[in-house]
Amino acid sequence: MNPPKTDARRRHDPESRGFASDNYAGVHPEVLAALALANGGHQVSYGEDAYTEHLQQVIRSHFGATAEAFPVFNGTGANVVALQALTDRWGAVICAESAHIHTDECGAPEHVAGLKLLTVPTPDGKLTPELIDRQAFGFEDEHRAMPQAVSITQNTELGTVYSPDEIRALCDHAHRLGMKVHLDGARIANAAAALDVPMRAFTNAAGVDILSFGGTKNGALLGEAVVVLTPDGVPRMKHLRKLSMQLASKMRFVAVQLEALLARDLWLRNARHANAMAARLAEGAAQVPGVEILHPVQANAVFARLPHAAAERLQQRHRFYFWDEAAGDVRWMCAFDTTEGDVDAFLVALKEEMAR
Amino acid sequence: MNPPKTDARRRHDPESRGFASDNYAGVHPEVLAALALANGGHQVSYGEDAYTEHLQQVIRSHFGATAEAFPVFNGTGANVVALQALTDRWGAVICAESAHIHTDECGAPEHVAGLKLLTVPTPDGKLTPELIDRQAFGFEDEHRAMPQAVSITQNTELGTVYSPDEIRALCDHAHRLGMKVHLDGARIANAAAALDVPMRAFTNAAGVDILSFGGTKNGALLGEAVVVLTPDGVPRMKHLRKLSMQLASKMRFVAVQLEALLARDLWLRNARHANAMAARLAEGAAQVPGVEILHPVQANAVFARLPHAAAERLQQRHRFYFWDEAAGDVRWMCAFDTTEGDVDAFLVALKEEMAR
Amino acid sequence: MNPPKTDARRRHDPESRGFASDNYAGVHPEVLAALALANGGHQVSYGEDAYTEHLQQVIRSHFGATAEAFPVFNGTGANVVALQALTDRWGAVICAESAHIHTDECGAPEHVAGLKLLTVPTPDGKLTPELIDRQAFGFEDEHRAMPQAVSITQNTELGTVYSPDEIRALCDHAHRLGMKVHLDGARIANAAAALDVPMRAFTNAAGVDILSFGGTKNGALLGEAVVVLTPDGVPRMKHLRKLSMQLASKMRFVAVQLEALLARDLWLRNARHANAMAARLAEGAAQVPGVEILHPVQANAVFARLPHAAAERLQQRHRFYFWDEAAGDVRWMCAFDTTEGDVDAFLVALKEEMAR
Amino acid sequence: MNPPKTDARRRHDPESRGFASDNYAGVHPEVLAALALANGGHQVSYGEDAYTEHLQQVIRSHFGATAEAFPVFNGTGANVVALQALTDRWGAVICAESAHIHTDECGAPEHVAGLKLLTVPTPDGKLTPELIDRQAFGFEDEHRAMPQAVSITQNTELGTVYSPDEIRALCDHAHRLGMKVHLDGARIANAAAALDVPMRAFTNAAGVDILSFGGTKNGALLGEAVVVLTPDGVPRMKHLRKLSMQLASKMRFVAVQLEALLARDLWLRNARHANAMAARLAEGAAQVPGVEILHPVQANAVFARLPHAAAERLQQRHRFYFWDEAAGDVRWMCAFDTTEGDVDAFLVALKEEMAR
Repeated sequence: MNPPKTDARRRHDPESRGFASDNYAGVHPEVLAALALANGGHQVSYGEDAYTEHLQQVIRSHFGATAEAFPVFNGTGANVVALQALTDRWGAVICAESAHIHTDECGAPEHVAGLKLLTVPTPDGKLTPELIDRQAFGFEDEHRAMPQAVSITQNTELGTVYSPDEIRALCDHAHRLGMKVHLDGARIANAAAALDVPMRAFTNAAGVDILSFGGTKNGALLGEAVVVLTPDGVPRMKHLRKLSMQLASKMRFVAVQLEALLARDLWLRNARHANAMAARLAEGAAQVPGVEILHPVQANAVFARLPHAAAERLQQRHRFYFWDEAAGDVRWMCAFDTTEGDVDAFLVALKEEMAR
Repeated sequence: MNPPKTDARRRHDPESRGFASDNYAGVHPEVLAALALANGGHQVSYGEDAYTEHLQQVIRSHFGATAEAFPVFNGTGANVVALQALTDRWGAVICAESAHIHTDECGAPEHVAGLKLLTVPTPDGKLTPELIDRQAFGFEDEHRAMPQAVSITQNTELGTVYSPDEIRALCDHAHRLGMKVHLDGARIANAAAALDVPMRAFTNAAGVDILSFGGTKNGALLGEAVVVLTPDGVPRMKHLRKLSMQLASKMRFVAVQLEALLARDLWLRNARHANAMAARLAEGAAQVPGVEILHPVQANAVFARLPHAAAERLQQRHRFYFWDEAAGDVRWMCAFDTTEGDVDAFLVALKEEMAR
Repeated sequence: MNPPKTDARRRHDPESRGFASDNYAGVHPEVLAALALANGGHQVSYGEDAYTEHLQQVIRSHFGATAEAFPVFNGTGANVVALQALTDRWGAVICAESAHIHTDECGAPEHVAGLKLLTVPTPDGKLTPELIDRQAFGFEDEHRAMPQAVSITQNTELGTVYSPDEIRALCDHAHRLGMKVHLDGARIANAAAALDVPMRAFTNAAGVDILSFGGTKNGALLGEAVVVLTPDGVPRMKHLRKLSMQLASKMRFVAVQLEALLARDLWLRNARHANAMAARLAEGAAQVPGVEILHPVQANAVFARLPHAAAERLQQRHRFYFWDEAAGDVRWMCAFDTTEGDVDAFLVALKEEMAR
Repeated sequence: MNPPKTDARRRHDPESRGFASDNYAGVHPEVLAALALANGGHQVSYGEDAYTEHLQQVIRSHFGATAEAFPVFNGTGANVVALQALTDRWGAVICAESAHIHTDECGAPEHVAGLKLLTVPTPDGKLTPELIDRQAFGFEDEHRAMPQAVSITQNTELGTVYSPDEIRALCDHAHRLGMKVHLDGARIANAAAALDVPMRAFTNAAGVDILSFGGTKNGALLGEAVVVLTPDGVPRMKHLRKLSMQLASKMRFVAVQLEALLARDLWLRNARHANAMAARLAEGAAQVPGVEILHPVQANAVFARLPHAAAERLQQRHRFYFWDEAAGDVRWMCAFDTTEGDVDAFLVALKEEMAR
């Protein structure tokens, strides 16, 4: 069969994969098939289409009967829309110093929403009630932006995973103090796979008020959703999404991707596979003399320390990033499409470069 | 051949089309094919991929050697990123009262960028040097946000099209006053098709400094680009895009859609077809007694006035919107996938409802 | 008696006054005396002092038992704090095209608060229910910033004065539509004097929700107050004031000025006098051939039209501003310290210059 | 002589002073005299008056021939206007974790200016080049708000004072990295008095680009100034001040206060006196068993640690604040009007409460 016609041309090697990021991967074929399925004919724009409507059912099957999904474009957009939903103009958000919203969003929370982030250093990217307390004060003091929300990332930017109990303790503590809880779930599927529990176990069942559901790193082309778990307390999500420039006109194509992932188990298959590849990689790397694995490898990220020169030589052969270049720390990410062969070839290269 | 597997299900009739908006349409099959082409393997995220790199060449073939494209998610995002590039914190933007940035973006220019819009009523959606002068004053007066940019829409929200000379006169005037010019090109392809000139004839060749290139309404799934035409004067676009939450991680899939449209002539085929369908519709409707065509039909929009009751009956049969419900004004939009049969069926229904 | 020692030196003629603006005037001697009275010793800063506490009683004697005053620095600050109190992040404010918040605040509502202003042209600076309706729509449409407040100016920027009934009709209309009403009272004292009613007659008694009380133009050195009339609906004013950078540390000195004006009748004496001087000026000027009085002179502003050259010659002798230079329109403002002699000398000069 | 008439009444004991804050103090009598001097007659508003004009000379006598002062209302306003002058929309500001802009401005830098603050923990409130480096990276990385400015406080919020050499080293380092330096001088006079050098020695002579000059805590009623030291690099200060709602209409009264302080040596007399009182207090307190002085007492603040119960009893007799209530740390501030008798009475009370 001839491939469908297009004036665009392939410009890359579809067999080449690295360990730089799970967003270096492309689209899972089943998601691409879903896009074709949703194509053709006219559908109401801006979310009044049949796919976005159906997505609500799908989301509720995962997050409970009161959940409501608002598809958006990207993770920064999801996070900033969600945080605006939890805060007033005078509100602040408590988060880990390593949180994506603090380190990787170019100040979008501050620029778009005027939000103040109150950060706490953590050993492993995870907040605790005690760590929250370091910033949870002065609620009535007009000189201080009022802490109104806590934002956690599951799994964290350091590859660690909160247990459901840990999140429940955080949420209880935050709620007692009058704050709400946002969960940045850019890699929520990997966390659920790591914990081997449904996503609801550590979200609505644990007290989370709103979450950013990440589709892109899980195999979508482009698409995330703000999922409101306690809708009564969250006003005007549609307005917040629009004024935050996160409203897709042809939303059916964002919604159907999320359906493709979540309708049955594609989200979990993808996440489990990526996690398994990371475990294989970590296990192999730990046996290479001179390589230290830095954090517990609970999801699809491996943080390791090795000699800087060896890391640089290895980068010539396989793409990945330094995490803390001064310390020689590197991050190796696995994706839904990482193969055992990819991992094994990487381990061979690692051994060779460490042996030089 | 079996369709590729996906857990998502089709939920709409791919043969049903209306006249509500060109963003009710889906994706052009050639664009969908391009997505598949760009899939597989790993590509650097956030725009360092081969497709985004190549897009620069494609864009330059249309907009000249100094043009640079920054793919973004949607039109509001493109507009607000572009306007931030032209203004300081104290800047204001002059635009028509009917401009999308003023009427349809939920205050995103104000909320995200703190921008003040200085609006001017126009008869037909088009600014002129004289109309600009109604707001172009007080440049040195600290009590007034400083007019630093003029924003025009081509074709306009009312379906009218600026000639290249009209835009050149606007740009010359704005530049003389120290202002820069942004062109909201959500439907720029339709304008070029209507004028039968290259897009550059009314953009960089006419003095436009920056534009929002619209892919979505032209047949893309989702994708626009801020195109900087005078790069020397426009700083840090990448930072502006990121802090405006418009940076796609898997950008190859946005870029390749724009390549599919622009590499050869898909953009023009789509636009010409949509315009031709609007012309057919207008011509037919103008012959129906009691139907008044309101603006010159120069692109793919038809604005008409008809009795309110007839319009409502017609809406039961074919989807479209009132534009000014009090006045009985309606808007009929044609898309790249509107067929002659769609138009003719609509005209039959129009005649029938007007005859009741 | 020797004047108190200071290293500062007098640099102006304390007997020279013009008609440029009521904020060209200095401080009323009774206000200056109040500053001295409040001096000495320590008082809790940021508004927990005895003067700010007492101010609440004073304000309630004017605006009713539920009123609460939040002293701020200037009119723009008062307006933007007040409007933030009435709106959510997705809110918009309907106002006259001539409103100070739109024309003279350098975009502070947009920059500081991300607010969208929805403006309406008016013949005389006054909104009506009908004029409000031109922007009061689309409350549920996420594509449009939601109209949540109406802002009116009393007396208006054009010197006109709303009757209590007019304001009541506006407020009723706004409330019916779910919007709240802000009154910019930069010259509220002049309006009360003009109407010969208590201020409450056209504020809380008429349905106004929040107002900016103007002390500066009424004889204060520097000091305004946001006065919340319906406190139940207005959250966290102290936080809004602080994050808007309008919180004075030594607030006793702002509060005591307002007490000096409002405790008995200084506010009214000052306003009546300024209004009387404007009436005298308008009456005299109307009799000069070639001079046209443009708006009803209801407060302390006179808008007039005269030949441009005559106006320019007159400006050489007495300071005042063109309002619309192209049209030859000028504005003559009277202040609490304008004397009959000042007015009469001005009228002599006007006659002379018109006769040349 | 009868006091001048006013309807306001004295509501406090002008002989009662505490140690809570230097902004609990009133106005120095020489500053009050300056207000009277500048009163009467009309002066152009918004800074075009003779006093604001002359202030430039006064400021230049302290800060060099290129300095330019922009009077504003309060310290938060001064800081946020100054930081906006040094940053683009994508800019971030590096500051100490204890900086006033981070801890005490209710998120105004984020809310008003969309600024991201990148904070660094410090032992004593002072940044160093090494501490700056902890946040000075990623200048070209669009995922991170670009560090464009460093903000330091002199003297610091912890009462410590930078030497001129320390500031020079900071500025050289910041400039080498392409950043500019802001100095929050809310207590700059105390720092100059402590160092016994002219203010220029640690501002423009040390490389500072812009500073917030604090008048209020130095004896003014209300008034600070943004002082631009390198005017070529700082655009449109007047617009930034206005859109930040910091533009006084009757600016002569802000300017003349600063003149009264700075024309000769009132600023220094006030600062030296406050510092001397703090030294007296610290010396006395250090000799009380169980009282620990926490930071070097270099200016007018004393930070001490004592048993919580004793501190609470002492607060019943003299007003002051806990700084870190959990640790039992307190702050005792001296002002321009603190007397030796005030200090000695406080020390007696301290001894008594510690002895219980």
